[in-house]
Amino acid sequence: MKITCSKDRLNHAVQTVQKAVAAKATLPILSGIYLSAENNKLELQATDYELGICCTIDAHVDIPGKIVISGRYFQELVKRLPGDTVEIASSTEDRTIKIMAGTSQFNLLSLPADEFPVLKSLFDKQNGTSNLTIKDNVLRDLIKRTVFACATEESRPIFTGALLELTENDVRMVATNTHRLALKKSITEQTTSNSNLKIIVPSKVLNELARLLNSELPVDVNICWEKNKVAFRFENVYLESRLIEGQYPDYNRVIPPEFGTTATINTALFIDAVERVSLMAKDGEYNVIKFQFNTSEVIITSNNPDIGKAYETIPVSTEGTDITIAFNAKYVTDILKNIGSPELLFSLNTPLSPASIRPVNDENYTYIITPVRTL
Amino acid sequence: MKITCSKDRLNHAVQTVQKAVAAKATLPILSGIYLSAENNKLELQATDYELGICCTIDAHVDIPGKIVISGRYFQELVKRLPGDTVEIASSTEDRTIKIMAGTSQFNLLSLPADEFPVLKSLFDKQNGTSNLTIKDNVLRDLIKRTVFACATEESRPIFTGALLELTENDVRMVATNTHRLALKKSITEQTTSNSNLKIIVPSKVLNELARLLNSELPVDVNICWEKNKVAFRFENVYLESRLIEGQYPDYNRVIPPEFGTTATINTALFIDAVERVSLMAKDGEYNVIKFQFNTSEVIITSNNPDIGKAYETIPVSTEGTDITIAFNAKYVTDILKNIGSPELLFSLNTPLSPASIRPVNDENYTYIITPVRTL
Repeated sequence: MKITCSKDRLNHAVQTVQKAVAAKATLPILSGIYLSAENNKLELQATDYELGICCTIDAHVDIPGKIVISGRYFQELVKRLPGDTVEIASSTEDRTIKIMAGTSQFNLLSLPADEFPVLKSLFDKQNGTSNLTIKDNVLRDLIKRTVFACATEESRPIFTGALLELTENDVRMVATNTHRLALKKSITEQTTSNSNLKIIVPSKVLNELARLLNSELPVDVNICWEKNKVAFRFENVYLESRLIEGQYPDYNRVIPPEFGTTATINTALFIDAVERVSLMAKDGEYNVIKFQFNTSEVIITSNNPDIGKAYETIPVSTEGTDITIAFNAKYVTDILKNIGSPELLFSLNTPLSPASIRPVNDENYTYIITPVRTL
Repeated sequence: MKITCSKDRLNHAVQTVQKAVAAKATLPILSGIYLSAENNKLELQATDYELGICCTIDAHVDIPGKIVISGRYFQELVKRLPGDTVEIASSTEDRTIKIMAGTSQFNLLSLPADEFPVLKSLFDKQNGTSNLTIKDNVLRDLIKRTVFACATEESRPIFTGALLELTENDVRMVATNTHRLALKKSITEQTTSNSNLKIIVPSKVLNELARLLNSELPVDVNICWEKNKVAFRFENVYLESRLIEGQYPDYNRVIPPEFGTTATINTALFIDAVERVSLMAKDGEYNVIKFQFNTSEVIITSNNPDIGKAYETIPVSTEGTDITIAFNAKYVTDILKNIGSPELLFSLNTPLSPASIRPVNDENYTYIITPVRTL
């Protein structure tokens, strides 16, 4: 193989695929980045079998070929290369790859390219069935407003992923760790052939995907899935993930149909007060803060015998009955950081039943939080 | 105690002293910040017995007094308080401190103030002997250009600190880990009574001090010392440190009086090339990169059997004989990051004798580096 390409494009492609390079590779080949050159295209691939990413860029191909380079060193090196263009060539003398830019010349050890598990696009296999197209900003928003609610511990794998579901009226994403749940819907025009989309995607993959969905102008994302895999295609990127198997619980059951109390609250004032009060609640098991809602204010308090007491009041406009309720402070601050709206509605029923936090004027985003029983 | 003060001033004072709060306190009282209020001044102190910091701000003192609050929570809280002013009052009912700002009210547990080892200013003890005054920007520069060369491992404590020395002509700081040495001199007007300054200050303290020496316009720093302590006083801050005991080696002996080869090099080109080459040298024992100096260029190479090979050329202007020499890559990049000059002089004698790197046009900054013997 021998190619020349833009350094900036190569760097962008390497940074795009590198998050799929296996960190602790059981198979050494998975610690590499696969490069394939032909027809004036250079394709880069990396996979750890859970997540696979492929990125294609233009290149001047002198000699087509396929190579695998150690991902870690290639990525560090390309980032720091001088000049505008890079030449990459496999050496005929030894099993190294020569990388040249300006007056820099590097020989990196190569890995056997025929051992690399090359990604095969799901789109090629599918004959146009089971796929969906949405805008990248819509997908990014679905992810960012829900994925933080996933479970981090692995004891119940299903909750370490988020549900991506296509209904008759919307595309939606749902994430929960059983103590809190985030649901975001998007009513978009859908280019969809058949609508049986109900898949659980690992949160790690969704975070990577959201990071890559960063185009300045909205672009289309094609989504394609089969029993245990999903693929996303946008611009020059193809990303493929294994799915989490299992039956996602019926999240509609945990969303209360109505509430006895609803307070309208300024988000900025609320988050600052909650964060201060949670300072006194952070350690160990004492992560509980108390909210007393009345007509015109909410009093937020915490009491940790080892640290001290906190007392804050925030003006609110409450409809319904007064209520005192306690929550895990982190589950409240998590949604306040992601709500993206200057005002929010905090809706409650009883001190022991689930409450809802959502933006004012957005029916399509709901966060459900289970209270904590206090003495 | 009962006081009211500016939130921003209080926050600045707390952030100033908090680095002296003991992280792992053997004595619980050292995890606290001491506050003393009288004569419309609020004094904050923290100490871990190695480093002590005191910061004084204006405050409206209603009731004078002394209290100690848990440093960790007080610092986090003050940073986040709303509004412009803060009221701090010791409670008469229980052993808590009440902190009020806007609609926020916190009660933090207090520690027994009479157990706090209150700092006693060395300046008060000294009757004007053994002291020195220099500008803060000069002192900061002495620290920043040398302290990185200190040893990090504790096996020989003397090298975990830097030498601060007053000679007939200059104030200087020296740091070494025995493999490389940095020396920075400053020829300043000195307000000095007697000149017996030759102390070894812990690098951790110097890093903190440099962080606090950040005034926009130069201010005076008064330095005062005795057998095992040094104190620095500037603006509203007093900082005191224990000294490292022992005899600092004669660093003049390791600075070669002359060199057979001197190359003039562009710093930016050099650092980029060295960093790239060191990518291939980073792992384990292979942290060695090779320099071949000839009249018009330096060839920088590394070879790590597990990663690959690097080859860079940088144009230089060399006077003297050609030489090939190898160094620990980190010891070279460390000085290049701190040299602060667009061009540098790299001076060498033989492949096994110490070399020097220093800025062009600055006789007062020298870095000595010991080569590595290669096969």
